[in-house]
This record gives sequence, structure tokens and C-alpha cells, in this order.
Amino acid sequence: MKLVPLEDRVVVKLIEQEEKTQSGIVLPDTAKEKPTKGKVVAAGAGKYDDKGKLIPMPVTEGDVVVFAKYAGTELKLDGEEYLVLRASDLIGILPQG
Amino acid sequence: MKLVPLEDRVVVKLIEQEEKTQSGIVLPDTAKEKPTKGKVVAAGAGKYDDKGKLIPMPVTEGDVVVFAKYAGTELKLDGEEYLVLRASDLIGILPQG
Amino acid sequence: MKLVPLEDRVVVKLIEQEEKTQSGIVLPDTAKEKPTKGKVVAAGAGKYDDKGKLIPMPVTEGDVVVFAKYAGTELKLDGEEYLVLRASDLIGILPQG
Amino acid sequence: MKLVPLEDRVVVKLIEQEEKTQSGIVLPDTAKEKPTKGKVVAAGAGKYDDKGKLIPMPVTEGDVVVFAKYAGTELKLDGEEYLVLRASDLIGILPQG
Amino acid sequence: MKLVPLEDRVVVKLIEQEEKTQSGIVLPDTAKEKPTKGKVVAAGAGKYDDKGKLIPMPVTEGDVVVFAKYAGTELKLDGEEYLVLRASDLIGILPQG
Amino acid sequence: MKLVPLEDRVVVKLIEQEEKTQSGIVLPDTAKEKPTKGKVVAAGAGKYDDKGKLIPMPVTEGDVVVFAKYAGTELKLDGEEYLVLRASDLIGILPQG
Amino acid sequence: MKLVPLEDRVVVKLIEQEEKTQSGIVLPDTAKEKPTKGKVVAAGAGKYDDKGKLIPMPVTEGDVVVFAKYAGTELKLDGEEYLVLRASDLIGILPQG
Repeated sequence: MKLVPLEDRVVVKLIEQEEKTQSGIVLPDTAKEKPTKGKVVAAGAGKYDDKGKLIPMPVTEGDVVVFAKYAGTELKLDGEEYLVLRASDLIGILPQG
Repeated sequence: MKLVPLEDRVVVKLIEQEEKTQSGIVLPDTAKEKPTKGKVVAAGAGKYDDKGKLIPMPVTEGDVVVFAKYAGTELKLDGEEYLVLRASDLIGILPQG
Repeated sequence: MKLVPLEDRVVVKLIEQEEKTQSGIVLPDTAKEKPTKGKVVAAGAGKYDDKGKLIPMPVTEGDVVVFAKYAGTELKLDGEEYLVLRASDLIGILPQG
Repeated sequence: MKLVPLEDRVVVKLIEQEEKTQSGIVLPDTAKEKPTKGKVVAAGAGKYDDKGKLIPMPVTEGDVVVFAKYAGTELKLDGEEYLVLRASDLIGILPQG
Repeated sequence: MKLVPLEDRVVVKLIEQEEKTQSGIVLPDTAKEKPTKGKVVAAGAGKYDDKGKLIPMPVTEGDVVVFAKYAGTELKLDGEEYLVLRASDLIGILPQG
Repeated sequence: MKLVPLEDRVVVKLIEQEEKTQSGIVLPDTAKEKPTKGKVVAAGAGKYDDKGKLIPMPVTEGDVVVFAKYAGTELKLDGEEYLVLRASDLIGILPQG
Repeated sequence: MKLVPLEDRVVVKLIEQEEKTQSGIVLPDTAKEKPTKGKVVAAGAGKYDDKGKLIPMPVTEGDVVVFAKYAGTELKLDGEEYLVLRASDLIGILPQG
């Protein structure tokens, strides 16, 4: 992704929820939950604290992060949809593999 | 649980209230109170104060905590439901055993 | 009470208002005033100020405290109802005896 | 009064406005103005500033104080009605005699 | 005026707008603009800043001050109406003579 | 102008938008845009920062300034209408000539 | 552009979204997305932090920036429309070429 986020912003590509229920029924779009998981595609350099010291970013490109259902700001860029969150709005990280 | 919470976040698995009234009547789901007790399944490392010093977490994995009825953010992860709270939103700890 | 409150939280057991008017009429439940008095059943250790110094708690277990009609958060624990307040939300203390 | 207010709280007994108009007509209760004057019946010890220094109270028991029409919190204690205000909510003092 | 204002409060007696239009028509009460000018009748000693230093008051008794149409709190005292403003709510001073 | 603004306030005389469209049609009053340009007619001495140091004013009398459509407080003084803005509410300066 | 922005303000000329869908249908104005991309046409010198140190601007004239759909304040100047944003409201920069 070409976008260079400013401050402690994290740009996330949503990971859609499973499209089947546990009993195997394929869910229509309107019944799907809003995603709360996503892959970090770009992260800013971090914010500076009151003393002028850079607060390091807790996540990096490629991390799978979890956030609240209505957190962040939607962003459409070149036809693709992303979610932009502040690092402090991320609930946590899901280690992969 | 795989999720690694950020900052002072606490992920809690709700402990449902008793399903019977004192006179032994089994309550339907709609009559049950919203839980205010839960078991900590994951806790962040804590937040940093204005001086850059880490504020230690008051709870750890396995603790049973009490919170207000409408506190926290609901989180659904891999079919399981959790509540995410900031450490400062916890009312207190219920020592077990 | 088993609950150990965090920070400067105070758990209070409400003291119901008199159930009779001055002329001796017994009031029905709906005509009773919301209580503004309660007995402290558990108190946290206090909060830390910006310098990292503990602010001592102004009340202790057993104190009778006064608070505004709609202050605090209701908490139901093991069938009992409590009110949870921050120390700074307490109006004052009523010395007993 | 038995209540010991906490922090910079001031408990005030309202001073009702004159019940007659200038032309001598006695006003019914509903036409009376909400009082903005009161006598201090109890005052806290004051609040601490950011440096941990006690900010002295500007008023003391017996002072007649003036406040905005809708300032403060009503408090009913043992059948008596009071108004509880923070010292910083008081408009001023009316020196007596 | 007897009232001694606290902190940086300024008590102002409103200066009514001209009751005639430029063409000499006397306006009824409902067509008059809300006053934005007033004479200071009492002023507090000022507020203390974060370092405990007194911020001197920018106005003194007798000054004619200008304020926004809906600024301040109305105060009725002994039948007279006043406006109470914080020093920081005053737009400016109109030097007289 | 006689008014001496306090703190970092700027008193502005609005500069009306062109009364004709590009094709030469004279617009009625209701179709005109709310002005976002104005000439500074009076400016305060500035505000003091947390260290007690005066923050110098970015504009001076005679400057043409730009502000958001709904910024500031309207002020009517001696029949003339002005807009009062804080220096920090000004978008920028339009250098003249 | 003649406007000299104050503090950390950035004046942006919007970059309209493509007027065709992927299948080549030309969209009417009402179906177009609100732009979230723009070219910086003027930028302030930056804001001062609490210590009086200038925080440098993250963008400069000519940069293509991305912002949230409803961020910023619209500004019409000499018939041209712009968007005014604080530097901290910018999501990120899109490096060109």
C-alpha cells in the first residue's frame, strides 16, 4: 500500500467473518457480523509524548489486530476499503502461526 | 486465549448469573440480569503514566472481577463472546476459594 | 463482604429512609425517596496522584456516608444490592454515636 | 449540623425570597423565585492542588453566600432540605450586619 | 453593592440599548436587543494559576465591559438584576470619556 | 474603534462577498454566502501560556483574515455589527496589495 | 494561493473521485463519493508545544494527503472551494510518482 500514515495511525484491511454458521448454513450479507479483525497494511511512526519522546508503535505491517465493532474511520482508496485506527484504539494482537 | 491485549486492557469471559430464583424457579433468558462478574482470560502489560513509568496491572489471568452492568466493549472472537475493559473500569476483585 | 474494590472506589449498602411520614402514615414503596445515605462495606486503597503519590481514602469500612440522589453505579452481587461510588463523589460523612 | 463535608463542598440552608411583592401582595408558592442565597451550615476542609497543597476554603459556617439559580445538588437529610455546592460554584459572599 | 464576588467573577449591571430606532421610533420591549454592554459593580480578587500565582483582574469597578449576547449567569439580588461573568468571558473594555 | 479586546480576542468587520454571480446576476440577500473574510478592527494583547509567558498575537489591526463560516461570536455595538474571534480560531491571513 | 494559514492548518484542494464506475458508467454528481484525497495548496508554520517548541509540519505544499470523509472545514475563497484541516487530522500522505 502506498499510503504513509501520520502519527500513531494504523491502516487495516478487514478480515471478514466466516460466511457459514456452525451447522454449515451460508449466511447472507445482511446477517454477517461487522468484522473486528484485520491485517495491518500500513502503520505510522508513532506519536510524541509531552516530553517530546516518540512512543513506539505496538504493531507493525502484517500484524493481525482486533478492535471494537464500531472503532476507527472507514477509508476508501482506489476502490479498496480500509479502516483507519489510532494505535490506542486497538484492543490487541492475534499472534499468527 | 490467543489474543494479546494492548495497554491496560483486560479481556473477560462473563460468568452468568444463577438461572434459578431463590424459590427455585428457572428463569428464561430474557429475565436474566446482565452479568457483572467475569474471569480474566487475558490482560495487557499496563499503561505508561505521564513520566513514562509503567502503571502495574491490578489484575492477572484467572482473577474474578466485578464491573458495572454496561461497562466495557463486547468482542466476538472465533464464535466466543468476551468483554473488553480498561483496568480503571474494573470495580474490584473477588478473591476465590 | 468479599469484594476488594480497586482505586478509590467505595462500596456502600444503602440505608433506607424512614417508612413513616411525620404523622405516622406508612409510605408505600413508590412514595419513598431514593436513599442518599449508606454504610461503607468495602473501600479501595486509594488513587495515585500525578506524582505517583497515593491519595489516602477519606472514608473507611463502617462509615456512614452521604451522596447525591443519582450518584454512583448500582451493583448486584450474590442477590444483594450495593452502590459503588468514587471517593470524590461522596458529599460527606455522618459521624455515628 | 452533623454532616462533615468532604473536599471543598459547602452545605447551604436556602434563604427563601420575600413572600410579598413591593405592593404588598402575598405570592403563592408557585410564583416565588428559586432562592439564590443561603447560609453555610457546613464546609469541607478544602481541596488539594496539583502540588499537594491545600487550597483554603473561601467561606466558613455562618456565611451568607450567593449562587446561580440552578447550581448545586439538592440533599434531603433527616427531613431537612439543603443545597450542596463546590466552593468554586459560589458566586460570592454577602457580608452581614 | 454589598456582594463580594469570589475568584475571577465580575458582577455587571446591564446597560440597556437605545429605546429608539435611528428614525426615532420608540421600540416596544420585545423588539429590544439583549444588552451586551454593562457596568462592573463588583469584581473578585482573581484566580490563582497552576503555580499558585494570582492572575490579576483585567477590569475594576466602574469599567464598562462588552460580552456576548448569551454569556454569563443572571442573578437577582434584592429585586435588582445583574449578570455574573468570569473575567475570561469578557470580550473587552470600552474606555469612557 | 473604541473597544479594547481582552486576551487573544480579535474584533473583525466582515467583508461581504461579491453581490453579483460570474454571469453578472445581482444576488438577493438570502442567496449571498455567509462571509468568511474580514478586516481586523481591534486585537487583544494576547494570552499567557502555562509558564506565564505572553503568546504574541498573529494578527494586527488592518489585517484581512479568513475564518470558518460559523466561527466566532456576533457582536452589535453602537449599531455596527462585528465578529469576535479567538486568535486560534483564525484560519489564516490574506496579505494585501 | 495567497492565504497564509495560521498554526498547524493545512489548506487542501480536493481531488475528485473517478467519475466512472469500473464498468464504465458515468456517475451523476449525487452518486459520487465525498473526496478523501487532496493536494496541499498552503500549510501553516506549525503549532508550539507546551514547552514553547515548534512542532514541525508533517506535510508541505504540493503533497497529496488523505483524510476522513467528514474531516475539516469547508472554505470558499474567491469562488474556489477548499478544505481546511489541522495537521493532526490528516490520515496520511500519498507519495507521488
